[in-house]
Amino acid sequence: MSRLLLNCDIGESYGNWNLGLDAEVMPFIDCANVACGFHAGDPSIMRKTVGLALKHGVLVGAHPAYQDLQGFGRRSMAYTPEEIQDLLHYQIGALDGICRAQGGRVSYVKPHGAMYNDMMANPAQLRAVIQAVAAYGELPLMLLATRDNRAAQALGDEYGVILWFEAFADRAYDNKGYLVSRQLPGAVHHDTEAIIQQSLTISRGEPLTASDGSPLVLRANTLCVHGDNASSVASVQRIREALKCQ
Amino acid sequence: MSRLLLNCDIGESYGNWNLGLDAEVMPFIDCANVACGFHAGDPSIMRKTVGLALKHGVLVGAHPAYQDLQGFGRRSMAYTPEEIQDLLHYQIGALDGICRAQGGRVSYVKPHGAMYNDMMANPAQLRAVIQAVAAYGELPLMLLATRDNRAAQALGDEYGVILWFEAFADRAYDNKGYLVSRQLPGAVHHDTEAIIQQSLTISRGEPLTASDGSPLVLRANTLCVHGDNASSVASVQRIREALKCQ
Amino acid sequence: MSRLLLNCDIGESYGNWNLGLDAEVMPFIDCANVACGFHAGDPSIMRKTVGLALKHGVLVGAHPAYQDLQGFGRRSMAYTPEEIQDLLHYQIGALDGICRAQGGRVSYVKPHGAMYNDMMANPAQLRAVIQAVAAYGELPLMLLATRDNRAAQALGDEYGVILWFEAFADRAYDNKGYLVSRQLPGAVHHDTEAIIQQSLTISRGEPLTASDGSPLVLRANTLCVHGDNASSVASVQRIREALKCQ
Amino acid sequence: MSRLLLNCDIGESYGNWNLGLDAEVMPFIDCANVACGFHAGDPSIMRKTVGLALKHGVLVGAHPAYQDLQGFGRRSMAYTPEEIQDLLHYQIGALDGICRAQGGRVSYVKPHGAMYNDMMANPAQLRAVIQAVAAYGELPLMLLATRDNRAAQALGDEYGVILWFEAFADRAYDNKGYLVSRQLPGAVHHDTEAIIQQSLTISRGEPLTASDGSPLVLRANTLCVHGDNASSVASVQRIREALKCQ
Repeated sequence: MSRLLLNCDIGESYGNWNLGLDAEVMPFIDCANVACGFHAGDPSIMRKTVGLALKHGVLVGAHPAYQDLQGFGRRSMAYTPEEIQDLLHYQIGALDGICRAQGGRVSYVKPHGAMYNDMMANPAQLRAVIQAVAAYGELPLMLLATRDNRAAQALGDEYGVILWFEAFADRAYDNKGYLVSRQLPGAVHHDTEAIIQQSLTISRGEPLTASDGSPLVLRANTLCVHGDNASSVASVQRIREALKCQ
Repeated sequence: MSRLLLNCDIGESYGNWNLGLDAEVMPFIDCANVACGFHAGDPSIMRKTVGLALKHGVLVGAHPAYQDLQGFGRRSMAYTPEEIQDLLHYQIGALDGICRAQGGRVSYVKPHGAMYNDMMANPAQLRAVIQAVAAYGELPLMLLATRDNRAAQALGDEYGVILWFEAFADRAYDNKGYLVSRQLPGAVHHDTEAIIQQSLTISRGEPLTASDGSPLVLRANTLCVHGDNASSVASVQRIREALKCQ
Repeated sequence: MSRLLLNCDIGESYGNWNLGLDAEVMPFIDCANVACGFHAGDPSIMRKTVGLALKHGVLVGAHPAYQDLQGFGRRSMAYTPEEIQDLLHYQIGALDGICRAQGGRVSYVKPHGAMYNDMMANPAQLRAVIQAVAAYGELPLMLLATRDNRAAQALGDEYGVILWFEAFADRAYDNKGYLVSRQLPGAVHHDTEAIIQQSLTISRGEPLTASDGSPLVLRANTLCVHGDNASSVASVQRIREALKCQ
Repeated sequence: MSRLLLNCDIGESYGNWNLGLDAEVMPFIDCANVACGFHAGDPSIMRKTVGLALKHGVLVGAHPAYQDLQGFGRRSMAYTPEEIQDLLHYQIGALDGICRAQGGRVSYVKPHGAMYNDMMANPAQLRAVIQAVAAYGELPLMLLATRDNRAAQALGDEYGVILWFEAFADRAYDNKGYLVSRQLPGAVHHDTEAIIQQSLTISRGEPLTASDGSPLVLRANTLCVHGDNASSVASVQRIREALKCQ
């Protein structure tokens, strides 16, 4: 991958509840992180979501999570590494089953919410996730690009798993290249021009300015964008165009 | 398939709750109908169950169900045909994901409980199930052998799905070749010798005696056996031996 | 009750998913049918919903359902009468617990979705519901007003349960006083003036015109209104004002 | 309470899955900690469990948990204090609803599993639990007796909640009066005589020997016993008799 792919969480409706402007954002993204039923996305929502992705030629990624519908997979839960692998195999497979029925396949894996955060914070959990992805076979894993991706890369290499590092255009970074907590002021960029500028900076491999003022280069393969509302969809469209013009 | 395969519901534990003597019955069966998380069987139980099946060279079948843990998938629920297909693709895929991680694959599909009964009672639902299995690709469907399998067979042929008809050694049949309701006296055979005798009769293609006294020939590929308790496991072992001696 | 109370389904969000304009409609209603966690409404949503109702002096009603989050409690499920009573006691109690913590109490019961429809279609299930409400103690039951409420009233009297009959201002009725299926044309009124007119007609005890042209008098204590969107909230406000002016 | 009450986790079956010898152990205990549906115990199981407790004159306690059926409520989950209060009100109320229908009431609260452990490890969570119990009204809270109960007692006094401290007859204690982790050797006593001896020692207010050899006096109102299997039930019966003879 040379250009920066745009990835977006998709299919996070459930039953009678709608969430996100999936149909609106799909035309502008490359990779759809599709909820697999444990934090959002029931089998019928998944079928519709996969159909939409395939129609637009968007890669379908599994977006597995802890089993916590009420908490939307955002609460840390004390799973064992082996249980996390089981969660991954179950959910990747479930989405793959939905894909197969429409002539598609799962193309990559990106853990959701607390499973993602715990994976980035805890090397034993990152190893468990990478092992699980390796055992499933031939899928890249999407994870956070930080200042220094080498430890993660070494783990990926050990298990033969391709890593896709992702960056955020709308988030501030600390000096280690981790996202500044949403609890803190300035953590999220709301200005569209700033978001587009950060997208371009990351795309060119130029340094951002971390929260401590230090320069921060993120080696990223993909940019995480959002389809929550009309404003964020408009940003995605602007980012898409800006990246094309490079 | 020329000989009568033995199939058994397996992996119906959940979390902290154990059900069935899976390890004890596995050596004597050919086909394990593995619960897929909607009526029983969580991802970790599924991993252990699949491991046990693979160790014994037993075929892993998906045993999908309505989403009803509390009712164990035994309550009829008003799903649309399209929703039933989604349930099937999700659950078959989930089990396939668990299998892949251990070098195995799902080998067939047998709906569970109310999904099975509704499929046998309602041609539109049988069509939905067969379409779903066809769309997943290349898996046989296990269903009830009755006096006249032709309508089901025609549907299977229409979608190119191989059908494996199953019979029961421990159940009484009515004159159409459907199971006598468990609510009625004599519906379930408890005598081991009678069970073995019915197994042999079915295996030889000879007629059983239906509840109205009429002769009933069941064309079956597989016999459903049970691993609920020590007594039923002993029966399975006896059936296994009796069928070998033919 | 002499005047026509307005009741509305409320608290049907779940976790991260929002549904309905609860805060907007609450000032205009008398009775809030609060989801109890089985089709919608988790404990935290319930706490917020009850707080909102208490703030506006709105009666809190339990709105129990079959256990089916994905189907929003709208799918019929084959529960036994005893299981339905257990569902009711559990959910009424759960909401009562949430109410108690804020100094309130549950004031009535209105089953949701398929549980409501099955209760109206099946006298054995209506009896089970009434028995359950009686056993809980001292709560009225809200159910559909039809052309002839006598059979229901006799059951209510048998168990000492007060019945609150509800009518719909935005639905067409058949000649038995049941709602015309949403599948049929003309089943739902979308014109605000027609909705207000039907509210007034019901309130005055005057006859509606059933779908076969016959006059239909509904003896109703309460009118079911909707807070799904801005338009329906505006209708509720108009109905509220129209009923006050009588 | 002057004598040592025996409390036991009860009603931990779910749907088709049975767990524990509830009927066998109920005659020998004083307090039944009844699962409320979030880690175990569905509404129908709860109805049967409450009926059994009432028949034997056993106090019904709410045994609320994190929402995690698969993990049996034993996994820590990152709930906010307010969400924990909502979980408590919902589950206490649900059990109270089941009790009311049989003429009983919930008599106390004992959090389950990870909710219990987190409450003992984290003062902010203990405060949240005590506040929730106070807001529900008039129920004692059961929690772990340790070497020094004063901080917990001060919190209970602050909110006017009666605390029932519990001790374990079959567990080793560390020098702060916390349970030795089950991961460590010697954490659980399996010898019936040792268990009875520890029961009597606690009952008399005499010191146990902590894992570091120091004497440890536990001021306890109740002893936690187990009905998991025939052997533990036999122990409960022996403890019951030994305590009576004092």
